[in-house]
Amino acid sequence: MTDAKIITDEALDLLFREARTHRAWLDKPVSDSLLQAIYELAKMGPTEANTQPMRIVFVQSPEAKERLKSYMDKGNVDKTMSAPATAIIAYDEEFYERMGDVMPNADNARVWYAGKDNYLKMVRSSSLGGAYVIMAARALGLDCGPMSGFNADGVTKEFFADRPACRVNFMINLGYGDAAQLRPRLPRLSFDDVCRIV
Amino acid sequence: MTDAKIITDEALDLLFREARTHRAWLDKPVSDSLLQAIYELAKMGPTEANTQPMRIVFVQSPEAKERLKSYMDKGNVDKTMSAPATAIIAYDEEFYERMGDVMPNADNARVWYAGKDNYLKMVRSSSLGGAYVIMAARALGLDCGPMSGFNADGVTKEFFADRPACRVNFMINLGYGDAAQLRPRLPRLSFDDVCRIV
Repeated sequence: MTDAKIITDEALDLLFREARTHRAWLDKPVSDSLLQAIYELAKMGPTEANTQPMRIVFVQSPEAKERLKSYMDKGNVDKTMSAPATAIIAYDEEFYERMGDVMPNADNARVWYAGKDNYLKMVRSSSLGGAYVIMAARALGLDCGPMSGFNADGVTKEFFADRPACRVNFMINLGYGDAAQLRPRLPRLSFDDVCRIV
Repeated sequence: MTDAKIITDEALDLLFREARTHRAWLDKPVSDSLLQAIYELAKMGPTEANTQPMRIVFVQSPEAKERLKSYMDKGNVDKTMSAPATAIIAYDEEFYERMGDVMPNADNARVWYAGKDNYLKMVRSSSLGGAYVIMAARALGLDCGPMSGFNADGVTKEFFADRPACRVNFMINLGYGDAAQLRPRLPRLSFDDVCRIV
């Protein structure tokens, strides 16, 4: 597991250096089995105490896309409606009801979280999960367009009616990006801006 | 960018399927240049409006590790003290002071965030950043041990005194894990548990 050569320079480009946030999409669908493959990779990433609070709705059909449309900020409508799929990344406020499944060796791990203020933990671990979705999608050859500009309460009510303890965090458009329509890449902060080694 | 073959099955194992949260470390250092290489990849991942609120302190020297020790929860002391490096993932509450640098084409993007409640956005985007650090470290052949069990206010005061607008989110031990000391992998929730396709 310590052989860095497993990941080629070309793979680092695909995952990090050349990957871009896309707003325009080629007319090429994303299958159910590919959405499932994304989750099967992303689920393996670490979350606090293996709690896995992330829940996802993949919006793929034209009918479901239409239900999403009115909740999007103006600047996010066209890219979302044209994306082959949109992953709504949410978290389950009652994630602790699954502690027996995700932490089977612990004695009553539910009490670590039940009745507590878990907001930071749920946002953090569902955001980690969303990042794993982005990296998994890229690893499988897809492009991503993450977004937070939408009516989150509206999307929660519209798409999580069957899971009333869920709250939406952010969304990720998924598909094959039209590289010809990319804008120039925005700057990143430097190592010295962000990091200290002590 | 749509050729999934760039990422081999072996690479997917390294990044996702076989990667584990490590608690015991081989006696093999992590150099400053490797820490920098992690950031140079992780910085490329997307954050809301390219805000990049994440700030990092890499704790590497024995002296700095000693300063960290008393803030760790009991179960996190040994693994942290023995790790070659520990990344403290924080966010800068005044991240919007850099909007001119990260969003140079926008007219006064600072006002999108200054004076607003940005807590969700900062936790979300710094957690995304932390996940990119995990994935980048793995891509470079390292193992990770993310943790949230510590006195966050204490670590903030101890390691961000020079950046008083920063708040600690979580930490990641970095090094070459001792696979012989891994416990069995904990279960993951299934696709049907977590996901819907509509």
